[in-house]
Amino acid sequence: MAQSLKLAVVRGDGIGPEVVDEALKVLHAVLPDDLVVEETAFSLGATRYLETGDVLTDDDMSALAEHDAILLGAVGGDPRDPRLAGGIIERGLLLKLRFAFDHYVNLRPTTVYSSVASPLADPGEVDFVVVREGTEGPYVGNGGAIRVGTPHEIATEVSLNTAHGVERVVRYAFDLAERRPRKHLTLVHKSNVLVHAGSLWQRTVAAVAEEHPDVTVDYQHVDAVTIHMVREPGRFDVIVTDNLFGDIITDLAGAISGGIGLAASGNLNPDGTFPSMFEPVHGSAPDIAGQQLADPTAAILSVALLLDHIGRGDLAAVVTRAVEADLAGRGTTHRRTAEIGDAIAAAART
Amino acid sequence: MAQSLKLAVVRGDGIGPEVVDEALKVLHAVLPDDLVVEETAFSLGATRYLETGDVLTDDDMSALAEHDAILLGAVGGDPRDPRLAGGIIERGLLLKLRFAFDHYVNLRPTTVYSSVASPLADPGEVDFVVVREGTEGPYVGNGGAIRVGTPHEIATEVSLNTAHGVERVVRYAFDLAERRPRKHLTLVHKSNVLVHAGSLWQRTVAAVAEEHPDVTVDYQHVDAVTIHMVREPGRFDVIVTDNLFGDIITDLAGAISGGIGLAASGNLNPDGTFPSMFEPVHGSAPDIAGQQLADPTAAILSVALLLDHIGRGDLAAVVTRAVEADLAGRGTTHRRTAEIGDAIAAAART
Ligand SMILES: CC(C)[C@H](C(=O)O)[C@@H](O)C(=O)O
Ligand SMILES: CC(C)[C@H](C(=O)O)[C@@H](O)C(=O)O
Repeated sequence: MAQSLKLAVVRGDGIGPEVVDEALKVLHAVLPDDLVVEETAFSLGATRYLETGDVLTDDDMSALAEHDAILLGAVGGDPRDPRLAGGIIERGLLLKLRFAFDHYVNLRPTTVYSSVASPLADPGEVDFVVVREGTEGPYVGNGGAIRVGTPHEIATEVSLNTAHGVERVVRYAFDLAERRPRKHLTLVHKSNVLVHAGSLWQRTVAAVAEEHPDVTVDYQHVDAVTIHMVREPGRFDVIVTDNLFGDIITDLAGAISGGIGLAASGNLNPDGTFPSMFEPVHGSAPDIAGQQLADPTAAILSVALLLDHIGRGDLAAVVTRAVEADLAGRGTTHRRTAEIGDAIAAAART
Repeated sequence: MAQSLKLAVVRGDGIGPEVVDEALKVLHAVLPDDLVVEETAFSLGATRYLETGDVLTDDDMSALAEHDAILLGAVGGDPRDPRLAGGIIERGLLLKLRFAFDHYVNLRPTTVYSSVASPLADPGEVDFVVVREGTEGPYVGNGGAIRVGTPHEIATEVSLNTAHGVERVVRYAFDLAERRPRKHLTLVHKSNVLVHAGSLWQRTVAAVAEEHPDVTVDYQHVDAVTIHMVREPGRFDVIVTDNLFGDIITDLAGAISGGIGLAASGNLNPDGTFPSMFEPVHGSAPDIAGQQLADPTAAILSVALLLDHIGRGDLAAVVTRAVEADLAGRGTTHRRTAEIGDAIAAAART
């Protein structure tokens, strides 16, 4: 019997539409007869907000919730536009979806492809996955300010961390480490300063580690991890970390692996109660939008994560191999966004 | 009339004593007749804590406060020692000094020396300074936990940010940018998520910028800044940022510039009410302690920051040039800690 996937597609702003077009092209190139994808387009993002005043309505939310998964290109307008200040799109859309759909695992793999130039002189073999917590930490929007605009202004930001929230993402990370050849897990935090949250993370990792005697466990402070990531990124296998630290180190990971144009991510609700969401780590890059200058590879690799998530690791592998083949053949000549998509789709078909 | 400097010396733990010995060697090598240094040794750190149970007593604090400046090697014991868990030394000593002595500027310069191997393939010319806030943000120790050890545990960490605290460090950063050839300042924060603190920082930078029309100003999110730091570190001049973001990006900066063994820092109380403190960014590295394996360069460059702070930029330049000369001649043969100190002291004398 054919499996059917209801896919919500948010092409978004800037380069979002261009890269999503290529991602869908590759998805269709690998679809077997027994998998039917029904796509629904959602017009969301800065453009729609500036036109209508709506970022994400209750109707949008209920409609999205009807789907099995979401593919998102990028959202956000011109960073200097005062009407978009304060992260109104990022928080009202991206973070709202992550929180409302309980995307407690933000999965961000990093591979250094030998054919892609890394800014590192000698990256070595790099293949790690960051499991970033997605629903807690300093991202909860639990802060405030008094006496704003006066010399007595005080602004706070509160990081909330729960046993429930930390344990489930730590379990996911251990299960993942268990399935990988090196079976190694690194907890990243700042437990010597953020002692309450740090202690919760450390105790949770220690407890779950007991159920996974074959996974070796390591701890690194977030400052020190940036050093290792540029000096010896090959040492990492699975990294589990808090929402904010994960945000920072996955951009760094993207950079050392030859560019944020290759970094894919999955915002997962592993329970399956809500649709998971797949998106490139990069932003909407309005400065190069509409010119076919963007690299769609991160969006295409996000499709691989999506396929993996719905239990089609076989198809995910086809996409990943097609991307690898394309990367291996990339020269210095610049290709248009659609040309890259065409090439990867063609490689996936063979 | 001779200037006299009362210097508190905290050699500390691990490699601390070794690197401080070399730093003092170089200090003495450059001392002119009109500058007299009176040193007082303070035995502080993990070793003393494990022996006596005291991290930093009121008596220690009053005695330190009598000094003009503090030179600190490194503190902290074996990270796996359960008696030192929860950052008891880091918080009880380093952070306590930074907060009690109102070290609101944590100054961390980064230079890529052409003779030192960087992990980056092509770092280019790099010469920037991070001005990290030192007395606020998530470092204030304002968090807590309930139901610890149960499935209902909640742990919080509160970042406190004040107009007073942000404005003074931002002013320092602009004054510094004003004195540098490129006159460029980058604010690093995460204003699209941490909106209250981010907005305070952004409004403060915008306001102080008006008084410095010749300084160009730029904003970067902390995640994105890690990308630029590995791809194009030469673009930065002065970076001003919050306590936690500064912690993270200065370790990264140290790594790209060829090692945390070269990274110096000054914890400044620019008002001069309390002694400022100078220390290498690296830790106590207990695994290599006592073997003359540590590179004392970061400690020696911390002496340069100290000399600069007391108004002796001329002597600071002598130390910096001696370090540069030594770095330029460094081959692949390993030198002992004291040999490096001897060489730099000799270069400083000529
Ligand atoms: C846009 C922003 C809110 C987001 C985040 O901070 O999580 C982005 O940086 C990311 O990593 O997906
Ligand atoms: C030891 C630790 C508390 C300290 C910090 O986080 O500030 C260190 O990492 C530093 O950067 O000086």
